[in-house]
Amino acid sequence: MTDQPFPLALPLQVTQWFNTPQPLTLDSLKGRVVVLHAFQMLCPGCVSHALPQAQAVHRQFTGEDISVIGLHTVFEHHEAMTPVALDAFIHEYRFSFPIAVDAPAGNGEIPLTMRAYGFRGTPSLVIIDRSGRVRLHAFGRVEDLALGALLGRLLAEQ
Amino acid sequence: MTDQPFPLALPLQVTQWFNTPQPLTLDSLKGRVVVLHAFQMLCPGCVSHALPQAQAVHRQFTGEDISVIGLHTVFEHHEAMTPVALDAFIHEYRFSFPIAVDAPAGNGEIPLTMRAYGFRGTPSLVIIDRSGRVRLHAFGRVEDLALGALLGRLLAEQ
Amino acid sequence: MTDQPFPLALPLQVTQWFNTPQPLTLDSLKGRVVVLHAFQMLCPGCVSHALPQAQAVHRQFTGEDISVIGLHTVFEHHEAMTPVALDAFIHEYRFSFPIAVDAPAGNGEIPLTMRAYGFRGTPSLVIIDRSGRVRLHAFGRVEDLALGALLGRLLAEQ
Amino acid sequence: MTDQPFPLALPLQVTQWFNTPQPLTLDSLKGRVVVLHAFQMLCPGCVSHALPQAQAVHRQFTGEDISVIGLHTVFEHHEAMTPVALDAFIHEYRFSFPIAVDAPAGNGEIPLTMRAYGFRGTPSLVIIDRSGRVRLHAFGRVEDLALGALLGRLLAEQ
Repeated sequence: MTDQPFPLALPLQVTQWFNTPQPLTLDSLKGRVVVLHAFQMLCPGCVSHALPQAQAVHRQFTGEDISVIGLHTVFEHHEAMTPVALDAFIHEYRFSFPIAVDAPAGNGEIPLTMRAYGFRGTPSLVIIDRSGRVRLHAFGRVEDLALGALLGRLLAEQ
Repeated sequence: MTDQPFPLALPLQVTQWFNTPQPLTLDSLKGRVVVLHAFQMLCPGCVSHALPQAQAVHRQFTGEDISVIGLHTVFEHHEAMTPVALDAFIHEYRFSFPIAVDAPAGNGEIPLTMRAYGFRGTPSLVIIDRSGRVRLHAFGRVEDLALGALLGRLLAEQ
Repeated sequence: MTDQPFPLALPLQVTQWFNTPQPLTLDSLKGRVVVLHAFQMLCPGCVSHALPQAQAVHRQFTGEDISVIGLHTVFEHHEAMTPVALDAFIHEYRFSFPIAVDAPAGNGEIPLTMRAYGFRGTPSLVIIDRSGRVRLHAFGRVEDLALGALLGRLLAEQ
Repeated sequence: MTDQPFPLALPLQVTQWFNTPQPLTLDSLKGRVVVLHAFQMLCPGCVSHALPQAQAVHRQFTGEDISVIGLHTVFEHHEAMTPVALDAFIHEYRFSFPIAVDAPAGNGEIPLTMRAYGFRGTPSLVIIDRSGRVRLHAFGRVEDLALGALLGRLLAEQ
């Protein structure tokens, strides 16, 4: 019996990581605000806006309790957006935040984390607070001003 | 004997207001976060970035405890940037937040509020917290992400 | 008896010039392509797009047979957009191409050149060929690619 | 003994085409102005500027004697930028102009057309006139105004 309105973030189901010496888990990031950006490397809106925004958050909040995680949720053109291609993409665009590959479904199209979170497509943005609860779940473009304000509020909690 | 590092915001010394039924004072805004944008209507950086940003804050935080105030700090081209010209400018650019005219100095160039605050030029941005203290004093461009984060933090205070 | 479809450009009726040692006339520019930008200094679309485009044409076609002329066609907020204010505006925005003030109507609102040309508002763009004929008469935004192509064609004539 | 300063465009050496019912050759395009955009699908400057510019030229000059050709000159990350990946890229970005795959070198890194033309990298832009001669050979960003002007001049030839 509680009025807790914010659901706990589900664990990431991923198969590979880039830009981190070891795999990350949401559990190990408790106490930090997590910015989870779901994208596809051939999604124009991700490339022009969402990924540069993720990189900007990563750079700007260095030293603060924010972790940015990219999640490559490939649900189309699987043969084009392979981990090898993603590696080249990350290198060419100079993204430096940790990026994971969403676990492919056995016989389906939607990878496991994407399905569990119910993402409608890419880009999708999930913001998780220090206690591991989802505070924003957005599909499409989120403005910098609004994103910044939410991060500022969540950093101020506790 | 205190470690309070943030100075109290000085009162506005202004001669005229637009977009408000009655003059505003910082005292009467205690309890709210105040975004004070100092600009000149013929300053290119103000027109292209700072004023649209002020308008975006005004629109986006409607219903929250944030007040945006524009301050027309004319320190050059006085004969061009008159209150009559400012009125037309506000109308043409559809700015809807309150804007005040900084009080001209008797025999000087720098208007009174600008001088008191020590603005180096335009655009200048001052962010004042709920208790009336200056938390940011910036000259030039401030990114939306950073501004949003500061506003989020200040809204979370108290 | 001719099938000439392009009308001759009407003479400019102006009262003052900036950025030129002496007044210009369309007659004296015969043999050159003329880019005539009609604007108002407080028109947002002029400031953000049309005037920077005029400046880019002026800079980029230096040494070629193109003359850029700005025409300040004030048809509203007359008391704000005076020649003194225009002077400050030109200075602050660093416009270096010749700019003229459209002659005010005796007892009307629409200045004389604007009325003669039938401009619907600002920004308006008129392109005049080497023989003094109007080849483009556009209201609103014109893309750089299309403007460049037209100028390239007209420069190639004769 | 001639003063012809412009070299003849070398033939394209390509292995695959997209967005065209049959392969194109520069010979068969004689009489038209050809805009040849060399790019890589993971090159940020190509994605943000050069390819949208190519698409804009393709759209804007429909019905005129201009042919836009994209050339995928993969000289790095070969395993990422395969024809299958290119196909997905073209689909996601809605490019509708003909695009060819530069022929891979047998035992080298630089594909054959890229090597023959001496491209320094991507994006590279080659403009070929109606008689098949190279009139522009540029590496990096070319502004719309300059590109438009050159196309206008070349269209006016003959």
